[in-house]
Amino acid sequence: MITKLSGTSFIGYSRSTGTRPCGQAVNPATGEALAPVYLSATPEEVEQAMALAAAAFPVYSNLPGKTRAAFLRKIAENIEAVVEDIVIRGPQETALPEARMRGETGRTTGQLRLFAALLEEGSWVDARIERAQPDRQPVPKPDLRSMLRPLGPVAVFCASNFPLAFSVAGGDSASALAAGCPVVVIAHSSHPGCAEIVANAVIAAAKECGMPEGVFSVLYGGGRTVGQSVVKHPVIQAVGFTGSRTAGMALMETAAKRTQPIPVYAEMSSINPIVFLPGALAKGEAALAEAYYGSLTLGAGQFCTNPGLVFLPTGQGDEFLAKLKSLVEVGQPSTMLNAAICKAFADATESLSKIAGVKVLAISAAEKAHGQCAPAVFAVAVEDFLKNEHLQAEMFGPGSLVVRGSVAQIEAAIAKLEGQLTATIHGTVEELSLHTSLVNALQQRAGRLIFNSFPTGVEVCSSMVHGGPFPATSDGRSTSVGTMAIFRFCRAIAWQGFPDTALPLELQEANPLAIRRMG
Amino acid sequence: MITKLSGTSFIGYSRSTGTRPCGQAVNPATGEALAPVYLSATPEEVEQAMALAAAAFPVYSNLPGKTRAAFLRKIAENIEAVVEDIVIRGPQETALPEARMRGETGRTTGQLRLFAALLEEGSWVDARIERAQPDRQPVPKPDLRSMLRPLGPVAVFCASNFPLAFSVAGGDSASALAAGCPVVVIAHSSHPGCAEIVANAVIAAAKECGMPEGVFSVLYGGGRTVGQSVVKHPVIQAVGFTGSRTAGMALMETAAKRTQPIPVYAEMSSINPIVFLPGALAKGEAALAEAYYGSLTLGAGQFCTNPGLVFLPTGQGDEFLAKLKSLVEVGQPSTMLNAAICKAFADATESLSKIAGVKVLAISAAEKAHGQCAPAVFAVAVEDFLKNEHLQAEMFGPGSLVVRGSVAQIEAAIAKLEGQLTATIHGTVEELSLHTSLVNALQQRAGRLIFNSFPTGVEVCSSMVHGGPFPATSDGRSTSVGTMAIFRFCRAIAWQGFPDTALPLELQEANPLAIRRMG
Repeated sequence: MITKLSGTSFIGYSRSTGTRPCGQAVNPATGEALAPVYLSATPEEVEQAMALAAAAFPVYSNLPGKTRAAFLRKIAENIEAVVEDIVIRGPQETALPEARMRGETGRTTGQLRLFAALLEEGSWVDARIERAQPDRQPVPKPDLRSMLRPLGPVAVFCASNFPLAFSVAGGDSASALAAGCPVVVIAHSSHPGCAEIVANAVIAAAKECGMPEGVFSVLYGGGRTVGQSVVKHPVIQAVGFTGSRTAGMALMETAAKRTQPIPVYAEMSSINPIVFLPGALAKGEAALAEAYYGSLTLGAGQFCTNPGLVFLPTGQGDEFLAKLKSLVEVGQPSTMLNAAICKAFADATESLSKIAGVKVLAISAAEKAHGQCAPAVFAVAVEDFLKNEHLQAEMFGPGSLVVRGSVAQIEAAIAKLEGQLTATIHGTVEELSLHTSLVNALQQRAGRLIFNSFPTGVEVCSSMVHGGPFPATSDGRSTSVGTMAIFRFCRAIAWQGFPDTALPLELQEANPLAIRRMG
Repeated sequence: MITKLSGTSFIGYSRSTGTRPCGQAVNPATGEALAPVYLSATPEEVEQAMALAAAAFPVYSNLPGKTRAAFLRKIAENIEAVVEDIVIRGPQETALPEARMRGETGRTTGQLRLFAALLEEGSWVDARIERAQPDRQPVPKPDLRSMLRPLGPVAVFCASNFPLAFSVAGGDSASALAAGCPVVVIAHSSHPGCAEIVANAVIAAAKECGMPEGVFSVLYGGGRTVGQSVVKHPVIQAVGFTGSRTAGMALMETAAKRTQPIPVYAEMSSINPIVFLPGALAKGEAALAEAYYGSLTLGAGQFCTNPGLVFLPTGQGDEFLAKLKSLVEVGQPSTMLNAAICKAFADATESLSKIAGVKVLAISAAEKAHGQCAPAVFAVAVEDFLKNEHLQAEMFGPGSLVVRGSVAQIEAAIAKLEGQLTATIHGTVEELSLHTSLVNALQQRAGRLIFNSFPTGVEVCSSMVHGGPFPATSDGRSTSVGTMAIFRFCRAIAWQGFPDTALPLELQEANPLAIRRMG
């Protein structure tokens, strides 16, 4: 039996007493509204969450890394303790299957523990030490020591497509908390119940670990209202977001217009191009089509790294296309995360099919139940692709566009692409060295380059880059997955001429934390 | 005899043929216009500089670090070869003395060599290697390797107050070129001749080192016209700027409104607060006042780190103030960098003196020649300081405001300060540990904390942070001085499943560059 949900925001260690309804979760497979009704945090409560976060910052940010690590580990433990609640409520809210909910819970707790290990090791702060040279000519050199410090309280928006791994205690929260930043989460209307289950786990962990109240709050009320007011608030020093280009750009605009502009890390829109070179096709076109189809339809295509654009050399890949067509035609429809995403996918495929030069390669003929979308693949010649930038619009779901042209034309088309999370090339090792300028063009457009594999399935590790030039993300210098995500919420600070005892432990002469340092 | 100046832009390896005058340098000490007349780059030439930079990027960014280092060293050598030209033209254009021009030349060549050494060592790219685990359950782990790569062509604006160290071949250019980014410089109207002398040195170095044309261009025509068109251009991927808050914010707005928004690193406005605690005053108020006065008036107060705000505990520091008053009253006027800066300082001191509660502590009575400003110090009670945010406005020049209040009131005032490049505290070691929340408040507002010293004199080294929250800079996560400045122009890219031979040398299995790597 699922733990009772109350439908109210978490204002630090208190619960909201707001009474204005802001919606209920809806089962996307049935259209049925799920209890409870969620209630908006009041403006006064938002203000209170901000004040608590501001007060928590100097305390939380100065805790030893190992203490913050223990908090992250406790959150992971508490989430694991409610996994049976998650696998009941999650599928009801999102239509994602139980296995996915279990897998995503594992990824979420794994992320938390990865950041905990980073803090325990401690060298991530990039400590740099330059000792004084009082006798230097013409002027003495002062003692200068620097390290990364947290920015301040961070606003995190839950993502519709990752109810756990990019929501309440997901990647953005884990990396911000690891950095030393209090977090204010804005729940997503698609899965408020999952949010509440996880929020309870986090708040319990904060209390159990003696964290300052205000280190964590979770607000209901919607991104456009409560979310915007949080991003405008002077206490907030950075924003983490995963979602649509429209919503992400609205946050970027709000953040840029503040008296003090702040960084926004919005992961928005990516069509993840794949280039198939002849050598890859020669190894077996049907198998390649099957693998591609698997990546395209994984999770009903609802991944940021879904491969929505395929480049095939002219005169090549007929068997690949025939196999892909046959797979799509009998492709099973899937229930989408919510009605808006379902409609957006239907609209996107319909608009695409009306653009000059675009042909339908295949659309699944299977009957669709309530809330479902089915795979669809389109084709266009590279000349027509280059004529219309709308052909680069993301179709969020199991849809893609195949572009055919010469390798030189493909390279030219890649140079015209917007920024991407990933870019993939299939071929032989010899082809890679033959086509260095093509590989270079892909590299300029993307955060992750993939060889002979597919972009879905994002490894959470220290070398992952889940970022890329705009509009893949609002800030292509960063990643939202992997340990480098912690850098988004930090800035370097230098201490000049400070006595040893007044320095952070990381910078003290004796190196009491035994971390790796420069100098 | 100074090398002949032609007054035209550098479009890669060509010179502009534009004929529209955009001004002449003016000797700020005399008002005399200096030959030659400078001519705007034409819109077609700006376009050509962009095309050259775009074409240079894939070549330049893929050169080995040691090759880029040799280029930086050659630039330094070529600048040293024209130092006698610089010390003739520089003082004419800026009224800065010969010794400063020589010192700044040394800082500029030192910066270039510091980045060269960083490239030669090579570990700055933060190479991260995670090897494949094909047998991992439930899914295999792919081989994933990441490192920092350059963003693309960078626009650099010359700064009025550093004709060398933050101009054509200054910190922004050095760090961008080191990162692997072609640079397009927009010359400053205050010292176009210095720009031309240095540009010739850089272009000669580029040719001597066989760099791709377009790795460097220098444009005349002004920040508001040519500069804005460069920042709007899709080829440009980042902007470096040091100057006024108004101009910096105009660039931020332009960059945010682009189809693809890009990062702007604008270093703008900082009043660099200093807190004097009783223990520091007890050691000798007169000596402290002399040291403070020296920092305040260094370079006619025309440094970003000029200490324009002083906090003194109530009832303390009377002797400090008396000594400061006596120094200011007989303080020598200095010729400012240009007429606009001179007028802005006069206006700023006049407006300040009219604000309720502000008293003149002292203004130099010395007679001022053409283009000169003289030291001025004002005083205000902390209660009045907190009432008016205009009291935080930067007075660019030898002016400062002394605020008196209790230590608790000082801490409250610091929490209300805008972001700063530096924050300084003078006191005893015991006072530092007594006032940790005051130190914390300073830390939250600044990029560099200084103990018992003064903020002017910015060390160029690996632990320097010359940055800070807005409006000190537009991007408080970065520094414009020291080796960490290279990170502004980079992003991490991950390679997944790539064969060793197709990887950058930094990521190849055998570690042929012998750099420090993770994994």
